[in-house]
Amino acid sequence: MEKILLGHGSGGRLMHQLIREHFVPQFDLKELSDSAVIDLKGHSKLAFTTDSYVVSPLFFPGGNIGKLAVNGTVNDLSMVGARPLYLTAGFIIEEGFRMSDMKRIISSMADAAKNAGVRIVAGDTKVVDKGKGDGIFINTSGVGIVPDGIDLGPRHIKAGDKVIISGLMGDHGIAVMSERNGLSFDPPVISDTAALNGLVERMFAGAPNSAIRIMRDPTRGGVATTLKEIANDSGFCIVINEGRLPVSSGVIGACELLGLDPLYIANEGILIAVVSPDAEGTLMEEMRKHPLGKNSAIIGEVTDEAKATVLLRTSVGGTRIVDMLAGEQLPRIC
Amino acid sequence: MEKILLGHGSGGRLMHQLIREHFVPQFDLKELSDSAVIDLKGHSKLAFTTDSYVVSPLFFPGGNIGKLAVNGTVNDLSMVGARPLYLTAGFIIEEGFRMSDMKRIISSMADAAKNAGVRIVAGDTKVVDKGKGDGIFINTSGVGIVPDGIDLGPRHIKAGDKVIISGLMGDHGIAVMSERNGLSFDPPVISDTAALNGLVERMFAGAPNSAIRIMRDPTRGGVATTLKEIANDSGFCIVINEGRLPVSSGVIGACELLGLDPLYIANEGILIAVVSPDAEGTLMEEMRKHPLGKNSAIIGEVTDEAKATVLLRTSVGGTRIVDMLAGEQLPRIC
Repeated sequence: MEKILLGHGSGGRLMHQLIREHFVPQFDLKELSDSAVIDLKGHSKLAFTTDSYVVSPLFFPGGNIGKLAVNGTVNDLSMVGARPLYLTAGFIIEEGFRMSDMKRIISSMADAAKNAGVRIVAGDTKVVDKGKGDGIFINTSGVGIVPDGIDLGPRHIKAGDKVIISGLMGDHGIAVMSERNGLSFDPPVISDTAALNGLVERMFAGAPNSAIRIMRDPTRGGVATTLKEIANDSGFCIVINEGRLPVSSGVIGACELLGLDPLYIANEGILIAVVSPDAEGTLMEEMRKHPLGKNSAIIGEVTDEAKATVLLRTSVGGTRIVDMLAGEQLPRIC
Repeated sequence: MEKILLGHGSGGRLMHQLIREHFVPQFDLKELSDSAVIDLKGHSKLAFTTDSYVVSPLFFPGGNIGKLAVNGTVNDLSMVGARPLYLTAGFIIEEGFRMSDMKRIISSMADAAKNAGVRIVAGDTKVVDKGKGDGIFINTSGVGIVPDGIDLGPRHIKAGDKVIISGLMGDHGIAVMSERNGLSFDPPVISDTAALNGLVERMFAGAPNSAIRIMRDPTRGGVATTLKEIANDSGFCIVINEGRLPVSSGVIGACELLGLDPLYIANEGILIAVVSPDAEGTLMEEMRKHPLGKNSAIIGEVTDEAKATVLLRTSVGGTRIVDMLAGEQLPRIC
């Protein structure tokens, strides 16, 4: 009998399969980005997204499930070029959950919403019996307006385009995992959870709209899975250079110790953008002025040397194929 | 140490307290209706709502969690006078959940969306380890457009207004409870889960917009809790007549057997409307033409004989005060 596996929630290959085989034929999911962009005929375009958060533990270095839930949904909207405006919050709470933890989480959500400039306008609370949940799960859904003239998507990608990353890889995943397993690293690794809408606004202010082809936030499944999604959706080959991938020494150390690959570790405060080669310079300059973009780097480019493939040029001069996360590396990371 | 109780998810007094004390001061929840209505300055008004579904068992007479999740969110949008347009679906699935059940649920959601004329445009899937969830929880969020000229709310309520119910009370709660406890009633009780947007459209077509003051769907906490919310929010007294409350003989029998009050049982396919006395006749006529409104009835009226109170005139000639559900009557009913 076919059953749901932890890997179906990984963001990787199993999840893509579940979505493609079961959700897509039944629902109206057009492009498989996290936000739907809806044309309100005559009005502006609306972006609409949803995400449930089940991160364990609920509190980790740099944040908690509430902060993550607000920033994550703000980011999903930002990735389609929308200006995030309104959020809803749905809580599934396990009976016996401490009210003091509830308060901390709510207050983090309020702070995160304020920082991102969005408003939480509707909510829902359900309680399940003890042993039928895990403390608290939070769904945030969000809407935003896509400004006229902004239209992102894999169809705009061309050979020669550059691939940008806005910050260090792997911090969120390693921070959650270290908290979960009682590990500590030196220097300590702190989740990068942050709202990217400010950085995105600066990017659009600094370059013509059409220079930015597509943006994605590499959460579950990490940078590798996100790049592979972009390669699949556009049909192009993406070649990245291992030596250019920004990773902190803390994350490198943790990954070496634990046998993990930073390319597959979840991030919650960085974005990947494919941009036109003419705009690369100005974009880098603009992004680096923003606190969340100070480690921005060009990590690779789009080519047509293979179809729907991601290639990694390693530091020692080799080339390897980068695939989606298969199965589950770190469950319940967001 | 203060903890979350099952009653915090009841829809009743404890939940209202949680929302008022913890959510309202931190978030931007203006009126405590289920949908936020957002004025997009120059564009139409957008309604935006969210609901998580944790019903147990997942399958029950008349529906399942998927059908419920679509209809429930369509109804929340309909209750603010919006035309429901787009939904998102967020799944939290327990490891080991049967794929065949997943398929049945997804297919019910697709059918329900089709019937209601809405589209599911974005989704999210998370998987939690076995023992940390309960099969599947579903969040649906929804957006809709509020047509120009429609503006519902407790501030429009006046003394002399009539209170309408669109159908039989208590079917959903009793259906779920009978499935949960392996009971069966004769005649059997089937959940009333249904999308109310068609009925609401007919109501607006049949009466001037301003004739409908407010609408609510009496889900968790039942008709009593919903009426008490309306009384609180408007400051008026609502007087209802026990003899006019439409209840099926199956629900009456089940409630007598189990010591439950149909006024507090959850419904998923009926609405309560406060309407102007001039429009009462035409509205009744229009509503009764619709399959979901054929048992519509005037159950009471708005008076100023007391502040923020609901009074029930009993069949034997007495009067009793109707309060919100206190604690939890039937947990996890939606």
